[in-house]
Amino acid sequence: MQNAPCSGYRSLFKIALPDFGSVAIVKTHLTLLLLLALTANLSGQSEQKEDAFFIKSIFSATLADGEAHDWLRYLCKDVGPRLAGSPGASAAVNATKFMLDTLGFDTVYLQPCLVPRWVRGPEAEARIVNSEQVGTEALRVTSLGNTIGTGPGGITAPVVEVHDFDELEALGEEVVAGKIVFFNRPMDVTQLNTFAAYSGAVDQRVYGAAKAGKLGALGVIIRSMATGRNDVPHTGTNAYDPEVEPIPAIAVSTNDADMLSRLLDKEEIRIHFSSHGQMLDPVPSYNVIGEKRGTTHPDEIILVGGHLDSWDIGEGAHDDGTGVVQSMQVYQTLRRLDYEPQRTLRCVLFMNEENGLAGARAYWAASNAANEFHLLAIESDRGGFTPRGFSAQGDPSVFTDHYRRINDWLPLLEPYGLGFTTGGSGADIGGLESQKGLLLGLLPDTQRYFDYHHTAADVFEAVSRRELHLGAASMTSMVYLIDKYGLR
Amino acid sequence: MQNAPCSGYRSLFKIALPDFGSVAIVKTHLTLLLLLALTANLSGQSEQKEDAFFIKSIFSATLADGEAHDWLRYLCKDVGPRLAGSPGASAAVNATKFMLDTLGFDTVYLQPCLVPRWVRGPEAEARIVNSEQVGTEALRVTSLGNTIGTGPGGITAPVVEVHDFDELEALGEEVVAGKIVFFNRPMDVTQLNTFAAYSGAVDQRVYGAAKAGKLGALGVIIRSMATGRNDVPHTGTNAYDPEVEPIPAIAVSTNDADMLSRLLDKEEIRIHFSSHGQMLDPVPSYNVIGEKRGTTHPDEIILVGGHLDSWDIGEGAHDDGTGVVQSMQVYQTLRRLDYEPQRTLRCVLFMNEENGLAGARAYWAASNAANEFHLLAIESDRGGFTPRGFSAQGDPSVFTDHYRRINDWLPLLEPYGLGFTTGGSGADIGGLESQKGLLLGLLPDTQRYFDYHHTAADVFEAVSRRELHLGAASMTSMVYLIDKYGLR
Repeated sequence: MQNAPCSGYRSLFKIALPDFGSVAIVKTHLTLLLLLALTANLSGQSEQKEDAFFIKSIFSATLADGEAHDWLRYLCKDVGPRLAGSPGASAAVNATKFMLDTLGFDTVYLQPCLVPRWVRGPEAEARIVNSEQVGTEALRVTSLGNTIGTGPGGITAPVVEVHDFDELEALGEEVVAGKIVFFNRPMDVTQLNTFAAYSGAVDQRVYGAAKAGKLGALGVIIRSMATGRNDVPHTGTNAYDPEVEPIPAIAVSTNDADMLSRLLDKEEIRIHFSSHGQMLDPVPSYNVIGEKRGTTHPDEIILVGGHLDSWDIGEGAHDDGTGVVQSMQVYQTLRRLDYEPQRTLRCVLFMNEENGLAGARAYWAASNAANEFHLLAIESDRGGFTPRGFSAQGDPSVFTDHYRRINDWLPLLEPYGLGFTTGGSGADIGGLESQKGLLLGLLPDTQRYFDYHHTAADVFEAVSRRELHLGAASMTSMVYLIDKYGLR
Repeated sequence: MQNAPCSGYRSLFKIALPDFGSVAIVKTHLTLLLLLALTANLSGQSEQKEDAFFIKSIFSATLADGEAHDWLRYLCKDVGPRLAGSPGASAAVNATKFMLDTLGFDTVYLQPCLVPRWVRGPEAEARIVNSEQVGTEALRVTSLGNTIGTGPGGITAPVVEVHDFDELEALGEEVVAGKIVFFNRPMDVTQLNTFAAYSGAVDQRVYGAAKAGKLGALGVIIRSMATGRNDVPHTGTNAYDPEVEPIPAIAVSTNDADMLSRLLDKEEIRIHFSSHGQMLDPVPSYNVIGEKRGTTHPDEIILVGGHLDSWDIGEGAHDDGTGVVQSMQVYQTLRRLDYEPQRTLRCVLFMNEENGLAGARAYWAASNAANEFHLLAIESDRGGFTPRGFSAQGDPSVFTDHYRRINDWLPLLEPYGLGFTTGGSGADIGGLESQKGLLLGLLPDTQRYFDYHHTAADVFEAVSRRELHLGAASMTSMVYLIDKYGLR
């Protein structure tokens, strides 16, 4: 298959210059000019054909022989959940270090970082009570990450439902103090892009406890960040305000949130809930990095990455086991196709994306201190679904040129359903923007992500091998093009 | 939201004709011409805006309030598998008739057809034997549809592996006679479109038994039509040659096919298998049809449909419960948005697509006998995954015009990730081509389909509500455009 560009080149040549010998009477410089123009054009066409064939072979090799799905099985089933600072995270560091050691990198190393150590303790429990003694309805809940617990006895209080911070502020301290605040604004399911719907609702989860705590609430219950209506609660980061006494925060499933809201329309509800989160002292952990030095431009770095940590419920399959194994797949596929990178290729598995970004910050600091230049960084952290393209980000001084350049390659990428849009790339690579390279986030189909995100349902079985491998092949194709041509 | 096109119209008008009163000195006919041109243009723009808003509201209404997912749960969990002629198929006819009766159609009726009645009996069993007595390896197998059984004692014979009919013919009767033929050509997993890979391999399943039987084989084992490597066998239609004595045919999981092939490289293998299929006498069954008569063009029919029957293992969720409930959703959403179809809208749930097309043939015959004209027919029978567009088919005398016409609407559809390609529409509607309307097949993302197709894994839980509803909204949008504008 890889010989085809040559035969294509030859046949074009034959058509373009069938009688080359007979034009010798034309003025020499004209002939030369013509020849040069034709050669440039032919060489461009030939290169594009070669690239098309190479990208086709990237996709074929990844679909047929890719290992990402097997690696993901190990990461999910043998390592399991891996919240930063937990034994699972240590096991993930060791396991992926061991894997990278077998993948032909020049160097594989651990980059230290100090991560927060949050422990859930026993899972939260909540029930609707008529009095403080009698439970009538158990709710499906989970503690939010980074939260404090209620203490062993739990808390019991009347519930007040709100939908945003304005509504909360309007109720004010006299209504909110001593209550449990129930944040119940759903994600907007009519948005096609579920990440946009997530952005429109997630402030409740991140800042709800801080905002309600400031008004004297005893605790908060957040409607889960989910696009479906079901019984699965979704955890995720909570961020306290250092100026405000922290209060416990839990998430409730969307079905139970709807039920609660219906009951609240009719009567006053009191809820008892207990949760047991604790933030312990930070502990040392690591990013895991594999590096292959470039042959001709070793000082230009191409990074592919995902984050190694996950929440502590589920297996962190789509978030972000898939990004980890896709990043590991990139160089593995290039090797399989005997492609030797001109630039330095780095596979970076970041620690602590979920609740602190300590790994990413350590990476940025070390990279900037060493005066490194990341020509390209790609993060995959939106799930292992059928890829639709990339979200591009960069320093304004260079971004327009970079964005135009990558759009030149659309004819090579559109056959795989890929396109570009501008927007955020990935939480772990955003801090590299000042190096003035290009930052890309893999954009998969978003429809199923919030069925799994931060839940016990985010397990290996929820990932399709083909969809996962297509994402890896998409990343590999971008790496190939930018490694081969740069961005100028 | 639906007022916005009007305000857009007004603001455009203001900009275009700010000083209309002051141009009275310009020649009247020139002014009129200008006015006419502007009005036509404005009316076009306004219509496009109105269409964009209506299509947005179709998607929003379906995502937020669509019932298709609930209907599918009923069809999968309460009705279950529904092979033509089975009690399950009768239950499906009754259940969907009952559902359609509640959906505001003018008429809901059952259209009779005579369907084959194949029964599986106990599921097939197969094992590798050293002698006829000792089983060493149980294989994961399933009987192919329409097949005969082995008889209660089963058959035992040496296995010969082939990859296509040429290889089989080359071996000839002297090698094949008395053997079990093992067809083991995999689907080409490097094809991006898994249906293309299916087309490239499925001849083994459909004609393998006939071809091998002609050379005296005792039975055939077919590698399952799957894109993954796993333990799940896939059933599906087998077609005997009326000139050739039928032999039993089963499918084996891809993992076991690979294992079998590795063993066959090393040693002679004998397999014992038993299967118990039986083709009984045909029985009466029905297509289920709901019809809403058009207000202004009642003689132009717009059909949306899927097939009600399924294989007898699994729940027929993606094949084709999703197509059934998406078709039911179309008019339900239009009603919700107070849209009254100008053309006659028919929701047709076809019987017996899987092993005979008796329902489709009955529909075509009745339609042609009544001199009907189907302006448009859309079938959904490629699974309930994120929609990517439509495959368009039609009589050559009109197809170019129709295809150009629908491509004019791309700006309205591309925001939803939809496009058009030419190709087959659907098995149940292909026979309407001679009526010279347009035939469309919904094209969803194909990556996961052959993990479920014709298996016990094709269950309700494998369907994403959002993906399913996006497909329904895509069909509804095409119905809206073609109902409103026709195809001229």
